[in-house]
Amino acid sequence: MIVLDTPIDMHLHLREGKILENVLSHTTNQFAAAVIMPNLIPPVDNKERLFNYKEEILAKSENFTPLMNLFMREYSEDELLDLAEEIFAIKLYPAGITTNSENGVKSIENIYPVLEIMQELNIPLSVHGESSGFVLDREREFKSIYEKLARDFPKLKIIMEHVGTADLLYLLDEYENLYATITLHHLLLTLDEVAGGMLNPHYFCKPIIKTPKDRLEIQKFVKSGHKKVMFGSDSAPHTIKNKLKGAAGVFSAPVILPALAEFFENDIETFQKFISTNAIENFNLNIPKREVKLIKEEWSAPYLVGEIKPMFAGRKFRYKVL
Amino acid sequence: MIVLDTPIDMHLHLREGKILENVLSHTTNQFAAAVIMPNLIPPVDNKERLFNYKEEILAKSENFTPLMNLFMREYSEDELLDLAEEIFAIKLYPAGITTNSENGVKSIENIYPVLEIMQELNIPLSVHGESSGFVLDREREFKSIYEKLARDFPKLKIIMEHVGTADLLYLLDEYENLYATITLHHLLLTLDEVAGGMLNPHYFCKPIIKTPKDRLEIQKFVKSGHKKVMFGSDSAPHTIKNKLKGAAGVFSAPVILPALAEFFENDIETFQKFISTNAIENFNLNIPKREVKLIKEEWSAPYLVGEIKPMFAGRKFRYKVL
Repeated sequence: MIVLDTPIDMHLHLREGKILENVLSHTTNQFAAAVIMPNLIPPVDNKERLFNYKEEILAKSENFTPLMNLFMREYSEDELLDLAEEIFAIKLYPAGITTNSENGVKSIENIYPVLEIMQELNIPLSVHGESSGFVLDREREFKSIYEKLARDFPKLKIIMEHVGTADLLYLLDEYENLYATITLHHLLLTLDEVAGGMLNPHYFCKPIIKTPKDRLEIQKFVKSGHKKVMFGSDSAPHTIKNKLKGAAGVFSAPVILPALAEFFENDIETFQKFISTNAIENFNLNIPKREVKLIKEEWSAPYLVGEIKPMFAGRKFRYKVL
Repeated sequence: MIVLDTPIDMHLHLREGKILENVLSHTTNQFAAAVIMPNLIPPVDNKERLFNYKEEILAKSENFTPLMNLFMREYSEDELLDLAEEIFAIKLYPAGITTNSENGVKSIENIYPVLEIMQELNIPLSVHGESSGFVLDREREFKSIYEKLARDFPKLKIIMEHVGTADLLYLLDEYENLYATITLHHLLLTLDEVAGGMLNPHYFCKPIIKTPKDRLEIQKFVKSGHKKVMFGSDSAPHTIKNKLKGAAGVFSAPVILPALAEFFENDIETFQKFISTNAIENFNLNIPKREVKLIKEEWSAPYLVGEIKPMFAGRKFRYKVL
């Protein structure tokens, strides 16, 4: 049996309403807490929207702590003073780069005053780090922006989200204030899953899953137990209909712990760091302790969750969440 | 006005029956001849199938020469003696690598006796050159097989089809008996067209369209007028329904000459070489002369051809085929 102490998903999309209802339990079954992304329509970028969204999640879950993120805009100091205690971080989307990011930030300089305030108030910055360049180069091209942000705001904790390009991980040791989340799909898959056989929209996501070399480097970082590397699923539910229309996102929530249990198999200590301890220590998180157990028993991933096809649909795993 | 002498598409998929009926005129309007690929179900790999297929094409066209390809298998010398005059080349598909290639060649060594006979009879070898490795590396990984084939059969003319990885083009000057075809989509597009925004199945193909660097190198080779570089569209009609199921192939036939006219704009001499003269000289082709004219007049690509969505659907071009 594997016993995990207070697992946290540091990057989760739940959407709202019916989709949220369908997917939420797949996370709360496995995680004590999750960082909830704010790219709804309209975005979660004010107190009312934030409170309502948090309430919706709490009303539909038990023993689960949603760590709320705000969608970046030009907030005033008063607004952030009012909200600082209610949020985990503020999420920066470059405009137009992924699902519902049309209202994102067009120029990083515009939000420098906000970053100043966040630094003062100790609110972390969460970043979808992609340029608008060639799809395979976008994360690498964003590297210099991460470096500039890290230098210009040395006390601001900056999270490089869902890193899929190994190059970015080397920044972790160069800049004290940079952190990274890694998804299940960037950890385990490559572009072959999308385009190697027939085109498979269910593994299409932004940033796109990349090369075997990137995957290998990411796996090395995760297996090393690097303190600044944390699990964040970026699990993103889209209906099959929307996936066939080209929507980006992988719905990995149902299979996360069984898949990670196989990945870590003989190194539960590193598993625990990756899935919880690193995040708690990096951000002084205060989350009610909750144990999650996996037993070694064959378990099959669901084929369908509502109208959403999950990652590894139907695949057999050697571990089952109790 | 641009006047092209006897344009030839050196790599074309027409399928059969209703699809062929829908798509054929889009090629015959623009081309005096085309090399017809044999990956039907079942494959075109015997005299009867070959004759029937050629007849089907001739019955539905005028002033058009189909240059027939056979699907590679372990042919006897008698079979090839009987067919040599009827075919342009024999197409080698590594098993399982693209549409209807399940009956392809599992080990190149198995067909060495056939290659010996082809070399003697002066039948060119046409190759879909991809390994079964990571999707972006497959052409590069096939490079050593091209080199081995070129060395082992120095008198066999070998066509590297639909080259999408610039590395392969450098082989043209190293091996006298290697030739290359280039598609419209590898010449003009990158992976961004498939995965840069929403996922777009209509530009998904094998070999997959690759990086801006690959495209730039391909464009340089084509613009240089390299004698061994020939146009081959690899135009491959799939219904929208099948594209949404993940089928690989770009249906470029309707837009080829208008798009190439824009690409070459001020260099009609190189256009003529790429679209005809190089092929005629490389393979001593004897095709009834036919002029195809383009005028400088706005023309819109069709949105739909039967149930098939063409490349550049609805896009406006500055040239129109007369």
